[in-house]
Amino acid sequence: MKGSVGELGEFGLIRELTARITGTPAVRLGPGDDAAVIAAPDRRVVASTDILLEGRHFRRDWSTAYDVGRKAAAQNLADVAAMGAVPTAVLVGLVVPAELPATWPLELMDGIRDECRVAGAGVAGGDVVRGDLITVSITALGDLGGRDAVTRSGARPGDTVAVTGWLGWSAAGHAVLSRGFRSPRAFVEAHRRPEPPYVAGPAAAALGATAMTDVSDGLVADLGHIADASNVRIDIASAALDVPAQMSDIGQAVGVDPLHWVLTGGEDHALVATFHPETKLPARWRVIGEVLPARGRTTPPVTVDGAAWDKAGGWDHFGGPHGH
Amino acid sequence: MKGSVGELGEFGLIRELTARITGTPAVRLGPGDDAAVIAAPDRRVVASTDILLEGRHFRRDWSTAYDVGRKAAAQNLADVAAMGAVPTAVLVGLVVPAELPATWPLELMDGIRDECRVAGAGVAGGDVVRGDLITVSITALGDLGGRDAVTRSGARPGDTVAVTGWLGWSAAGHAVLSRGFRSPRAFVEAHRRPEPPYVAGPAAAALGATAMTDVSDGLVADLGHIADASNVRIDIASAALDVPAQMSDIGQAVGVDPLHWVLTGGEDHALVATFHPETKLPARWRVIGEVLPARGRTTPPVTVDGAAWDKAGGWDHFGGPHGH
Repeated sequence: MKGSVGELGEFGLIRELTARITGTPAVRLGPGDDAAVIAAPDRRVVASTDILLEGRHFRRDWSTAYDVGRKAAAQNLADVAAMGAVPTAVLVGLVVPAELPATWPLELMDGIRDECRVAGAGVAGGDVVRGDLITVSITALGDLGGRDAVTRSGARPGDTVAVTGWLGWSAAGHAVLSRGFRSPRAFVEAHRRPEPPYVAGPAAAALGATAMTDVSDGLVADLGHIADASNVRIDIASAALDVPAQMSDIGQAVGVDPLHWVLTGGEDHALVATFHPETKLPARWRVIGEVLPARGRTTPPVTVDGAAWDKAGGWDHFGGPHGH
Repeated sequence: MKGSVGELGEFGLIRELTARITGTPAVRLGPGDDAAVIAAPDRRVVASTDILLEGRHFRRDWSTAYDVGRKAAAQNLADVAAMGAVPTAVLVGLVVPAELPATWPLELMDGIRDECRVAGAGVAGGDVVRGDLITVSITALGDLGGRDAVTRSGARPGDTVAVTGWLGWSAAGHAVLSRGFRSPRAFVEAHRRPEPPYVAGPAAAALGATAMTDVSDGLVADLGHIADASNVRIDIASAALDVPAQMSDIGQAVGVDPLHWVLTGGEDHALVATFHPETKLPARWRVIGEVLPARGRTTPPVTVDGAAWDKAGGWDHFGGPHGH
């Protein structure tokens, strides 16, 4: 595929984009009509939408179009999984400049399609318009399979807090990239292409998770959403968190406490959930804390080892290590 | 609400936007969690998405934020109705500049909510990000209620072609506005705020419509999509089309054949469908043509009174009246 989006033309681009999409059983009617038709066997459909802008949510010099597609899809599919649903389909809205190489949106669609495949979903439809700034809007749908949706508001004092997936890897990768480095590769890759633990979402719902969310803003911030919605406090035990040796090395090199990436780094889309304390959790879940009574909430909603976490030391704060 | 989007802040804006939304029975879980939950009693969900950009799809000096909201929602809800589905919910993705008055996105949301109400749907969720250009991304969902989805591919030779809703009104309003006028009001209003005949979509499906689409690109173009997908030809009888006297007056004033607006004007979101010739159609449907065999398609897929319609005379072509 040579040439620009403008040279390929709107209909040519839509034809090429559609050709990249493969059918799935849940997508009963795919792109090409006024709307798509998607299976919703549960009689309810879970739906989440996000908009990503070039420059703000991704950079073309840091990530390939394929990786942007993987990441954009992952972000929405993780939201669906975090409700306890199995992703079924996504719809894609795309703004592309005329001078953009036509390969860019096509490789983006390859990435979206492949991430959907990992999550068990299909691309059901979309819209493409020409504009000055690359914009990717994704809506993901999912099926609850008879389970109750797991919201943020069901955590109860005494519940255990557990996490599955990666924490801080994307933030460490961002720190590496923003300093002009391209390695260590594992963290850079994690920043470019998160790996949300999709299947753990519906599994957690089946285990009776009382509340759940995906970690998109950072563990402390996202647990704060659960604490606020559930009117509880949450305490995280820092010793229970996994800080890989290589992440500590990067932290030392760039002068950032790696625990801060783990506690405040977003975009890895780990799943964090609360469970009744007697729930037997499979090995993939790591217990990292406890739900406490609100007690008037004189302390912040989420504490680490009983104390407030220093918010000033975010991963985009380059002032060096901070106390905790 | 005073001040800019930037002054209100992201969380403030989301809080105000959410406060504008009213609950509906189909929206089981609305904004505020990782994803929304929407009823899908049919076990299938119809879904359509569109992106609108300021400058390209709307102008702030021509339309209020409220009208942009009405129009953006209408465009997607009409796609859902054109499948024969009853709209249930929309999700809204929004890009807003920091310097935009905060009233703008709030009034936009009022418009989206009110148009959803007309169609029987609710606002289930969304995403707001800051960016340079106002961008509105809407995904509409709908329920088929046990009916088959009406696609573009089911038209058969001998079927009648019928339309319900307005044709050419938005185009006439655009012609008026683009010449700096603000009246006649009915056409300007039609351009700012289309009135798709939502209930006619599911009703047409129940009547056994063989193919259906909403008129978003213009009658000839959209019937062309049906003709192509169904591998048939379609002939429109111009005498059967309704050209209001006031539209003729505007046409004369600006030197455009008003029939051209009716045949090529988009954005009114009328519904056009094909029916078995023996189908008894309610009064709201106007029979305007006939489905013919493809016959190798040496002629264009859609003809008017047996002849090709002169595409050069589109409503944005100001060269005066054209032959037909």
